[in-house]
Amino acid sequence: MHNSPIIAVDVMGGDHGPAVNIPGAIEAARTYGIRLALVGDTEKIKAELDRLPSGMLSGKVVYDIVHTDEVAGMDEKPSDILRRKKNSSIQVACRLVKEGKADGIVSAGNSGATVACGMFIMGRIPGVDRPALASVMPTEKKPIVLLDVGANVDCKPHHLFQFGLMADAYARDLLERESPRIGLLSIGEEEGKGNSQVKEAYDLFKMAKNIRFVGNVEGRDLFTGDVDVIVCDGFVGNVALKLSEGLSTSMSRILKRELLSSFLAKIGTLLARSAFKRFARMVDYAEYGGAPVLGLKGIAIVCHGASNAKAITNAVKMAAAFVEKKTNERLVEAISANEELTSFGKAVKN
Amino acid sequence: MHNSPIIAVDVMGGDHGPAVNIPGAIEAARTYGIRLALVGDTEKIKAELDRLPSGMLSGKVVYDIVHTDEVAGMDEKPSDILRRKKNSSIQVACRLVKEGKADGIVSAGNSGATVACGMFIMGRIPGVDRPALASVMPTEKKPIVLLDVGANVDCKPHHLFQFGLMADAYARDLLERESPRIGLLSIGEEEGKGNSQVKEAYDLFKMAKNIRFVGNVEGRDLFTGDVDVIVCDGFVGNVALKLSEGLSTSMSRILKRELLSSFLAKIGTLLARSAFKRFARMVDYAEYGGAPVLGLKGIAIVCHGASNAKAITNAVKMAAAFVEKKTNERLVEAISANEELTSFGKAVKN
Repeated sequence: MHNSPIIAVDVMGGDHGPAVNIPGAIEAARTYGIRLALVGDTEKIKAELDRLPSGMLSGKVVYDIVHTDEVAGMDEKPSDILRRKKNSSIQVACRLVKEGKADGIVSAGNSGATVACGMFIMGRIPGVDRPALASVMPTEKKPIVLLDVGANVDCKPHHLFQFGLMADAYARDLLERESPRIGLLSIGEEEGKGNSQVKEAYDLFKMAKNIRFVGNVEGRDLFTGDVDVIVCDGFVGNVALKLSEGLSTSMSRILKRELLSSFLAKIGTLLARSAFKRFARMVDYAEYGGAPVLGLKGIAIVCHGASNAKAITNAVKMAAAFVEKKTNERLVEAISANEELTSFGKAVKN
Repeated sequence: MHNSPIIAVDVMGGDHGPAVNIPGAIEAARTYGIRLALVGDTEKIKAELDRLPSGMLSGKVVYDIVHTDEVAGMDEKPSDILRRKKNSSIQVACRLVKEGKADGIVSAGNSGATVACGMFIMGRIPGVDRPALASVMPTEKKPIVLLDVGANVDCKPHHLFQFGLMADAYARDLLERESPRIGLLSIGEEEGKGNSQVKEAYDLFKMAKNIRFVGNVEGRDLFTGDVDVIVCDGFVGNVALKLSEGLSTSMSRILKRELLSSFLAKIGTLLARSAFKRFARMVDYAEYGGAPVLGLKGIAIVCHGASNAKAITNAVKMAAAFVEKKTNERLVEAISANEELTSFGKAVKN
């Protein structure tokens, strides 16, 4: 049998816990042959496994249960979870990777804690200054990678530079782009536009080896799909990500209210229903599963707390693909090829 | 006759120049009795005036033409325009305010140049460290003020603080909010979330006099309308503004494509047409006219380069209302009441 990756799933994480994580993870195991380490309360895990439709747990599904009944809260400070909750499901899942018992983790729990545990338990890839949280975003064309979306709120120019290098590897392997176009998020397309951080990062990107830097992009370019990667600091990226979610929700809500306000419009909406459904699927974040933390020894996929089973399935699939394609090897290559330039960036601005 | 404000319009500015600026400005003069100073090439201005429907230039419409044939290009550097194009329509318009011949300006031209000329020709209000570009944004409820959206890309915490104070005055007078709720854009609602700049600005806001600070807000809160003012630095604000424009355009385009893909959906769309129209109007930036530069002696309204005549009309109306309501007096009060706190902010982080 082919040795498929083992993905540790933080079963206790997220708003819905095992009720969503178990069916989501098992579906990934069943469909893609991914092996699982289900980390959490054994009793609750077994109860959810019992609830699955018969046939879902056929011989093809391979999983271990790794018991722990300590849970990291959604509102607890990541540093507290890291220091005090040694047996929380997220810490146990990360240790499985560190000990070589799993290849990556998936969690819909406290995202700050997942990033922190990933960094301090799984560990950084040597040469990577700051692991970054990347989000795969829907656009008018193909999905793109936006990073950092929240792991690093105060960044130096050389951090932005490394985010771009890591995302290049990700876009090549996971989004299957032959030569990803990398853009730097700014407030004007011309060189020289932006804040001081972005202007200095621009200079590093311009000199970078083995990547295709296309210059600055603006907020409006996030959804056209004309680049493959958009680099920004974690503060800006997090605002952009949440703003996008918020605006698409608000627009749908306003449109719905308008459409329900007259009889003719109601009939019209019924007739156009399938188009609305395709539209909703196109902007549905669950399609993309979760946000990978790039730069770790292994891989961690951070899922939205409100994730449904489909999002968990897609996140487990994403983690396994990342491992199978050996994306970290490609990432290390990109980082090392640009090591001197990164050092130069550090020296200029520290 | 009531002495209505005089608004200087940079007739040559914007993608469409006089063809849009003249009908837009005259409509504001005709409807609201605002007096105009039309700044630009006399011949082109007269040609457009001749083109207006008969009756639009009735006795009620009061305007002067201030001739200049130098134009500031959309792609020229603001500092170059400021230094070298002394007779550009934007500089001449700003000088009219400085010389007391006009009360405010409206321009759809190079927005960086408008901010720069506003600051260096019209001048800052004493006590204001950095004038800020504010944008009035549509939300699910009432419109709100987002600032800064691009005048200041590298900000200190006390700059953010003053942005909030200025926007408070604006929201009271122009949006008619009795006690505007002021939020600070960050990446989590709890105190202590954000980058270092935002965390320090939070401390200043918490101690502020005479304003209603409601704490951090997130990207997703931009369109719910649950606060009246959202404060951020000009880099983040500009990304947020352009991202919002881009996403609503992309969503409309995707939806249209989906709706035109089947016969039933096409029929449905026809039936729902009036709802779609109301929706489009609700998210139409032209309704709000333009973005005021707060903190100047006088007022400058920056319009989108692609503005239509309606946007210009609304911008001229906005400028006149700002003058009539004496919003700068209110702004000065808010700034002075918090002068010591601002100084404290400067001392802590400089």
